[in-house]
Amino acid sequence: MHDWWTDLDTLHGRVWDTLVKGVHVRHAAARHVAFATAGQTGGAEARMVVLRGADRAAGKLYAHTDTMSAKVAELRADPRATILVWDAQAHLQIRLKCEVGIDTGDCVAPEWRRIPEPSRRVYGNGDEPGQGMACPEALTVTPDQSRFAVMTCTVREIDALHLGRDMHHRAQYSRSRNWRGRWVTP
Amino acid sequence: MHDWWTDLDTLHGRVWDTLVKGVHVRHAAARHVAFATAGQTGGAEARMVVLRGADRAAGKLYAHTDTMSAKVAELRADPRATILVWDAQAHLQIRLKCEVGIDTGDCVAPEWRRIPEPSRRVYGNGDEPGQGMACPEALTVTPDQSRFAVMTCTVREIDALHLGRDMHHRAQYSRSRNWRGRWVTP
Repeated sequence: MHDWWTDLDTLHGRVWDTLVKGVHVRHAAARHVAFATAGQTGGAEARMVVLRGADRAAGKLYAHTDTMSAKVAELRADPRATILVWDAQAHLQIRLKCEVGIDTGDCVAPEWRRIPEPSRRVYGNGDEPGQGMACPEALTVTPDQSRFAVMTCTVREIDALHLGRDMHHRAQYSRSRNWRGRWVTP
Repeated sequence: MHDWWTDLDTLHGRVWDTLVKGVHVRHAAARHVAFATAGQTGGAEARMVVLRGADRAAGKLYAHTDTMSAKVAELRADPRATILVWDAQAHLQIRLKCEVGIDTGDCVAPEWRRIPEPSRRVYGNGDEPGQGMACPEALTVTPDQSRFAVMTCTVREIDALHLGRDMHHRAQYSRSRNWRGRWVTP
């Protein structure tokens, strides 16, 4: 019986199990994932997003966003993002280099219909996000499907790092190598 | 009695309390923070770092790294990073846009001396991080102070977002406005 982090395939499976659990379990480590994009004037931006889907067979992750959020503009300029998960209990860091597509309108109407009415209020908050306002109460909220977007994150590379007490295990997997793993120096 | 997220100054104080707690409390939300940088060939990179210092008066955060890690090369090309904290219990997201300086050698000898011997093994793992190897056990470990760097993150902008049940509060603070806050659309 080996620990799950000592075998390349088992570790790869654990990565996806962690992601899938994030989609379905409210307080799982990968429920909220860090989503990093290139800043429009250089540097990097990052924010949490809720993981809405994880498809191991396709190597894709899904999240929702407001079409007028800064990340959409950033992704239109450079679609390469990194998704980062830290599972503190498992001592596992997962990094996923992705290329992100943005779908809106009729294509994402089924996803929109599945969103509960109260949650729709985050789409269509009048102004675009990040605009100054006198007070939070000043916000007028009109749910607007045209502001709703699905981000499809096609994973290109996975970097998994397990921080053990005595040894760190780090492995990389890439789509171009058909997800065959290799150990790398931590 | 108002909730802490409804007042600009109280929210700003909470941001720094959260960061300081991350430095001193092992399982605090801001113990491990996401650290995003511009990729060297575009896109964005992100990884967790341990928060080692938080100085509200100076508006600075500190972390340690291996001089041969990819993030050091990325920061030398573009020193603008974003540090991201998600405090799930407080429903608080903190984003800090920083400019990062890297100090090594004699300047950081005091910090090096404070690192316990077992923890020094992550500095100087032979090859630079991310190089292929046959197995994790193949790693030879020789602590090497020349591989140790302190990252000094000078905060330029803070973005704090509280996700309330009925309303979201989002505020921004910038060094150039002497940290005077303003509400922005979430």
